Amino acid sequence: MTSDTKSPGSARPGGRTARNTAAVLRATLDELGEHGYGALTVERVAARSGVHKATVYRRWGGVDGLLSAALEWSTTHEWEPARTGDLRADLVDLAETVVRGFTDAPERDVSAASVAAAFASPEVAAALRVFMADRHARAAVVVTDAIERGEVPEDTDVHEVVRAAVAPVYYRLFVSREPVTESDVRRAAGLAADAAARGAFRNAATPSRPA
Amino acid sequence: MTSDTKSPGSARPGGRTARNTAAVLRATLDELGEHGYGALTVERVAARSGVHKATVYRRWGGVDGLLSAALEWSTTHEWEPARTGDLRADLVDLAETVVRGFTDAPERDVSAASVAAAFASPEVAAALRVFMADRHARAAVVVTDAIERGEVPEDTDVHEVVRAAVAPVYYRLFVSREPVTESDVRRAAGLAADAAARGAFRNAATPSRPA
Repeated sequence: MTSDTKSPGSARPGGRTARNTAAVLRATLDELGEHGYGALTVERVAARSGVHKATVYRRWGGVDGLLSAALEWSTTHEWEPARTGDLRADLVDLAETVVRGFTDAPERDVSAASVAAAFASPEVAAALRVFMADRHARAAVVVTDAIERGEVPEDTDVHEVVRAAVAPVYYRLFVSREPVTESDVRRAAGLAADAAARGAFRNAATPSRPA
Repeated sequence: MTSDTKSPGSARPGGRTARNTAAVLRATLDELGEHGYGALTVERVAARSGVHKATVYRRWGGVDGLLSAALEWSTTHEWEPARTGDLRADLVDLAETVVRGFTDAPERDVSAASVAAAFASPEVAAALRVFMADRHARAAVVVTDAIERGEVPEDTDVHEVVRAAVAPVYYRLFVSREPVTESDVRRAAGLAADAAARGAFRNAATPSRPA
């Protein structure tokens, strides 16, 4: 509502800065959802949020700064994977979540827009790294569950199991640009679950010497 | 050298159109290599190739068209994977090739530039799909070798083994934006080789019913 914020760069809960931050990041996500990354501009975000354009430029620098901040903000939202009591089923569900999130309108989702923007922006790439690390940590609870059930060795790199389950899905979506079928999802998740059960992701199983 | 080509859109070997095509696509790859995707323009490619700007626009439409054509053209170049007689070693080598090709100066490599551009351009995405299918087919010879040695079941989906070996590397490079260590490469390739030997990539092993 004003370009004269008291603490640019810091968000005090409940204060004007915090309200402005929430309004701007909400507007960024809404603009992405409605018009996609290609149409995202500081002007549109400013107009939608009711925050002065000069404030948005000063606080976030531009579109890449808005995208990075929106991505960081979205890690504060609650997200939990499904926990069915079966590692394979949980990993299939996780990989399916990836497919759903990225196939409807990829450039309209903040994480997909960030995957694209990270190629050109080190700032977005850094924010994406933090976001994905948060997702790995949240998703890894399904592997921890399997360890507690005794299905997977205790010293398993739980994040690596998550990466293994979703990487083939991302590869088809963003690199080889192939359709992702239900059997692709099941194979990727099933291989990760089987390998985890066999101890392939144990920390000790990682070659420690560089080649 | 002229904007008046007789057969725009068709490349006759040895003719002026073919020479123009080779000059323009060579210039596109050289511009990418020297200045990166962000600096790629029709003007620069035209100046470098000596082909009239209007001809470049008419034949290729713009930067995305140049990128797509350069990617397609690069599939006609010979490339063969290393064949050591050991599937695991061959897949490690393949995944290392991916890391090398994408970590030096990603936006300066035509395939990396295309991975980035494919998010915004359906034309580039289609060309990337064709390029990656060609790469899968060429790389799959290391799996065919393993089948011939009797190490891997005959009805193995050889392309899927290739995807499994490289997907975790691409995931770290382009999605989770994490460093790729030597042990990451060895783990990904090793898991793919082990799973292939156990028959996990047999066509019959793929669930055929949709869930």
